[in-house]
Amino acid sequence: MNLVNGIESDVISLNDRGWNYGDGVFRTLLLRRGRPHCWPRHYAKLRDDCRRLSIECPGTMLFERDLRHVATRHPDCVLRVTVTRGSAERGYAVPPDVPPTRVVAAGAAPVYPAEHRDHGVRARLCRTRLAIQPALAGVKHLHRLENVLARREWNDPGIAEGIMCDTDGNVISGTMSNLFAAFGMELMTPDLTRCGVAGVQRSRVLELAGSHGITARVGILDVEQLMDADEIFLVNSLIGAWQVTALEKKTWRSGRLTAEFRQWLDADD
Amino acid sequence: MNLVNGIESDVISLNDRGWNYGDGVFRTLLLRRGRPHCWPRHYAKLRDDCRRLSIECPGTMLFERDLRHVATRHPDCVLRVTVTRGSAERGYAVPPDVPPTRVVAAGAAPVYPAEHRDHGVRARLCRTRLAIQPALAGVKHLHRLENVLARREWNDPGIAEGIMCDTDGNVISGTMSNLFAAFGMELMTPDLTRCGVAGVQRSRVLELAGSHGITARVGILDVEQLMDADEIFLVNSLIGAWQVTALEKKTWRSGRLTAEFRQWLDADD
Repeated sequence: MNLVNGIESDVISLNDRGWNYGDGVFRTLLLRRGRPHCWPRHYAKLRDDCRRLSIECPGTMLFERDLRHVATRHPDCVLRVTVTRGSAERGYAVPPDVPPTRVVAAGAAPVYPAEHRDHGVRARLCRTRLAIQPALAGVKHLHRLENVLARREWNDPGIAEGIMCDTDGNVISGTMSNLFAAFGMELMTPDLTRCGVAGVQRSRVLELAGSHGITARVGILDVEQLMDADEIFLVNSLIGAWQVTALEKKTWRSGRLTAEFRQWLDADD
Repeated sequence: MNLVNGIESDVISLNDRGWNYGDGVFRTLLLRRGRPHCWPRHYAKLRDDCRRLSIECPGTMLFERDLRHVATRHPDCVLRVTVTRGSAERGYAVPPDVPPTRVVAAGAAPVYPAEHRDHGVRARLCRTRLAIQPALAGVKHLHRLENVLARREWNDPGIAEGIMCDTDGNVISGTMSNLFAAFGMELMTPDLTRCGVAGVQRSRVLELAGSHGITARVGILDVEQLMDADEIFLVNSLIGAWQVTALEKKTWRSGRLTAEFRQWLDADD
């Protein structure tokens, strides 16, 4: 079931600037027993991302009405919540007074193998690099071509995720996840002020670390440093936390930290 | 009038990867008295851009049928021709055997002031930079957020175009046009192997220069060099060629070169 500006529809106008220019932002989250997980955080991120692009974000009440509507039919699903700059005639210039387009789309929750969660995943290093663009860094905008190209680098179903670097060679994230690496007692995650998407679960890990007395740092991380990490894990709103137990030729034993964060992330926010 | 996979429709599926991820490419061109201007070149560029993203490009016959269909109703219009990777379930991974989506959309031809063509335009330097991404450079993919942000930097209708640099400070293009600068007897245009869109009219200018004995060079150009040019002009498939007669505080007198190239570009290909 899909809602476009609150009305049931499976299509979008060909004039929509999201389709024409990637001029919009989105969120992906779980609906569990009718409740959208971490909704206030997702909405805050959606609003912040809209602000970065000067798109007027519809109010949370409108989305919450949509979410209740979807929940009556699909209490357990994946939601994609999208806001675009709206429909307009051809051209990059934005006409005045164009209302944004609001889309809530429900899909089947993905079925990931239980081993990924319980015993960790194999990952690879992607050749596709993330371009450095501070004006868009951190924002989950509709342009995900770099992620698409990176994900096309492998077909092996035994590889669950690819790790991406920026064009300077610094580690940034997975193709669909944020990345954390533990060094001794310290946790670190790549700085995302030049590229990448600063996801909701990444913010939660940083906060949870603080509240559990774990030092967490945002910084620059190269591949060599990553390989030296004591534990690596990936987070997003669908997978929770997966430990990386194999990356290229290096392997790691099952770690304690990922399991702890997974449990904390899974709890209600 | 719009055609989606050859069928009249003004909407696209919410599952289309063009809408979801910017996973597609497009062309903008003029239909004049029922004839698509420079169609073989536009199709070749569409096919090349598809190949860069490993999208299967529909055959030219399918598009030509669409174009004839549109021409019966709108012999003079702007066409936007789009190919996306097709419709699929959520996720960056591309399922096998997804057919591409082919869209031909007709819109009103833009009405630009005659002075732009006859006496040149005022342009500005944009603050928004183009990210360096060799994997996507040259391709007219659906992600045009950088262009949208650059175009939002001004409202003054007296400014016809903005000039964009890459994140290293090199001049790349206009927000919607390719750029040429003349230095004495030599014409040059920025190298687009790291960012920017290598448009059809840019290729034509390079070829036309050759056939008219004008030396044309593709290279690196910074803002200071650009300001020292004897003549600057902008090209795309809708405007033809516009001379830049004012850029920030600097002005240029009407030049001979732009007028010549405009005439050559306007001719049938």
